[in-house]
Amino acid sequence: MSELRRDPITGRWVIISTVRGKRPSSFGNMVRQEEPHLCPFCPGNESSTPPEVLAYRSDQSQPNKKGWFLRVISNKYPALTIEGSLSREPKGIYDKMDGIGAHEVIIETADHARDLADLSIDEIKNVLWAFRDRTLDLQKDHRFKYILIFKNHGEAAGASLEHSHSQLIATPIIPHIVIEEINGARKYFNFKERCIFCDIIRQEISESERVVRDYGDFISYVPYASRFPFEVWLVPKQHMSHLVDIGIDTYQYLAEALKDTLNRLRVSLNNPAFNFIIHSAPVGGEYNEIYHWHIEIIPRITSVAGFEWGSGFYINPTRPEDSAQFMRDVDPSQAEKMFGAKVVPKSK
Amino acid sequence: MSELRRDPITGRWVIISTVRGKRPSSFGNMVRQEEPHLCPFCPGNESSTPPEVLAYRSDQSQPNKKGWFLRVISNKYPALTIEGSLSREPKGIYDKMDGIGAHEVIIETADHARDLADLSIDEIKNVLWAFRDRTLDLQKDHRFKYILIFKNHGEAAGASLEHSHSQLIATPIIPHIVIEEINGARKYFNFKERCIFCDIIRQEISESERVVRDYGDFISYVPYASRFPFEVWLVPKQHMSHLVDIGIDTYQYLAEALKDTLNRLRVSLNNPAFNFIIHSAPVGGEYNEIYHWHIEIIPRITSVAGFEWGSGFYINPTRPEDSAQFMRDVDPSQAEKMFGAKVVPKSK
Repeated sequence: MSELRRDPITGRWVIISTVRGKRPSSFGNMVRQEEPHLCPFCPGNESSTPPEVLAYRSDQSQPNKKGWFLRVISNKYPALTIEGSLSREPKGIYDKMDGIGAHEVIIETADHARDLADLSIDEIKNVLWAFRDRTLDLQKDHRFKYILIFKNHGEAAGASLEHSHSQLIATPIIPHIVIEEINGARKYFNFKERCIFCDIIRQEISESERVVRDYGDFISYVPYASRFPFEVWLVPKQHMSHLVDIGIDTYQYLAEALKDTLNRLRVSLNNPAFNFIIHSAPVGGEYNEIYHWHIEIIPRITSVAGFEWGSGFYINPTRPEDSAQFMRDVDPSQAEKMFGAKVVPKSK
Repeated sequence: MSELRRDPITGRWVIISTVRGKRPSSFGNMVRQEEPHLCPFCPGNESSTPPEVLAYRSDQSQPNKKGWFLRVISNKYPALTIEGSLSREPKGIYDKMDGIGAHEVIIETADHARDLADLSIDEIKNVLWAFRDRTLDLQKDHRFKYILIFKNHGEAAGASLEHSHSQLIATPIIPHIVIEEINGARKYFNFKERCIFCDIIRQEISESERVVRDYGDFISYVPYASRFPFEVWLVPKQHMSHLVDIGIDTYQYLAEALKDTLNRLRVSLNNPAFNFIIHSAPVGGEYNEIYHWHIEIIPRITSVAGFEWGSGFYINPTRPEDSAQFMRDVDPSQAEKMFGAKVVPKSK
């Protein structure tokens, strides 16, 4: 079982998870499987993964067999598992608890050759819908305080398998950066009685120079104090604290916006490795007024970010306004011509 | 001039520095210069760098000419510069200020072929002494609140030149992670009236399982809630808040401890890319009671750390106790045989 350990100085929790059993000699050796017949995420190989917890599939097909077009499984090497106790144990000055939680993989398509941005709007909508289905299910478990959904695309972004997938981790604690966001948003709300994200969106639309695109219900923009070049956020204009709060019709628009944004990134940066992280409020309604859900997309193009996560001090070599203009000016429809056939993501 | 921008949600400041003038097509193209005659940090090429601000050199030699054995210069592409105003300007909901500060490069040796860990104890002591000299000089400038000293070793750690060097950035704001540490340390101090770092060191020595080595005045240990495999901290046992507070004789012992620790990392992980960051208190005496200076060394061996800096949620696949034991058991004297001749650091 993995262990959650709390740093006594900063209060940050870390998951110590040794299920992959890494020895020092094995770091950096990613499992990359470019042969579809050997890929555990490809149809026909369902038996090489844990059983599915959700699948969207044709009516005639059987669970854990071919015939699905989207499949959610438990991670074979979970960082957190559902057994264990919630109680915190002291260890001298330190704190630990059992690594309870859920760690799932959303296999976004049956097709090994297509990335998320290659999928049709309907297929991307299914991916978002799967995020919703799994969130609604997992938030019934009252041990989970946060449901973190993210995607690692490309080896430099931490992907260990090439077949397009995203991940979900349900945790008994709230991630550090979400706590920071909540604390900042609460201070603003206490002072202004308004959501800080709503006010940011208003200012971004009115200044327009950092907006990549206005999609009607959503905008994509490069944050004013971006940590990384071409960091881009996708944000709903309407105030809502959870991804699962959006209307059923809205998933269509979100799928369109996400596809367009990812394709603009692909054309701008020649198919970069990237992470996206869905920032929703913690489980429950406590933060509904102050928190505004959004998606942060971070291309992994600079290894220059050397000491940054050791100091919290970021140096961004590109003006956010320039990143935004570049992404505004590219033609996202070029992306599928350029990258639609599987291209191995650049690892750096 | 670069610009400091404040993220209105988390309060984190970011340096927007475009002096390197990167266009999207140029990311990932590090300047690597393996030919010493073309290396700007090699003796004879002094004119291709900004003039030195400090050099340790033979008595007969001239400034900005050959004959030095350690040289400190302004960074040719500084993230921050000394001209500009300290005043904050609002921009709607945002805040910015001029990117004032200093950004210097410590060229640790005249010899292109040797890394920091290859240097003699006396040479490493000189490097530490240069950190001290530059810190004492820069903290006279009352605009600077923090002096950040760090080293990027290897391309994966963000080094853009191979010739062994470290960097110093003096900033008008305190880095985010230092603020977090101060806040945590202050809470502990308010409750216990003791330094949290001192108490951690006591517990680590008594439990011993995460200690790599006890050097007498210093210990190296793998933190209980390490974010990364083989993360290792080098900490003075005696309470002091700044590197520059240590006694003149103590630099010798610190040099020995640093060399031993880096060599243990090299042998354990086959000459990994790494960052080290010297965590000292902000300039001035305000934090003397609560803050305890230390060096954090982070090998860059996992690209698995994908979404981590987007969520603050770290998954460490190696138990800190196992990392510590591995580093305890290796023979650091092997390092120079294995890596003493210049080996190109692994880029992943």
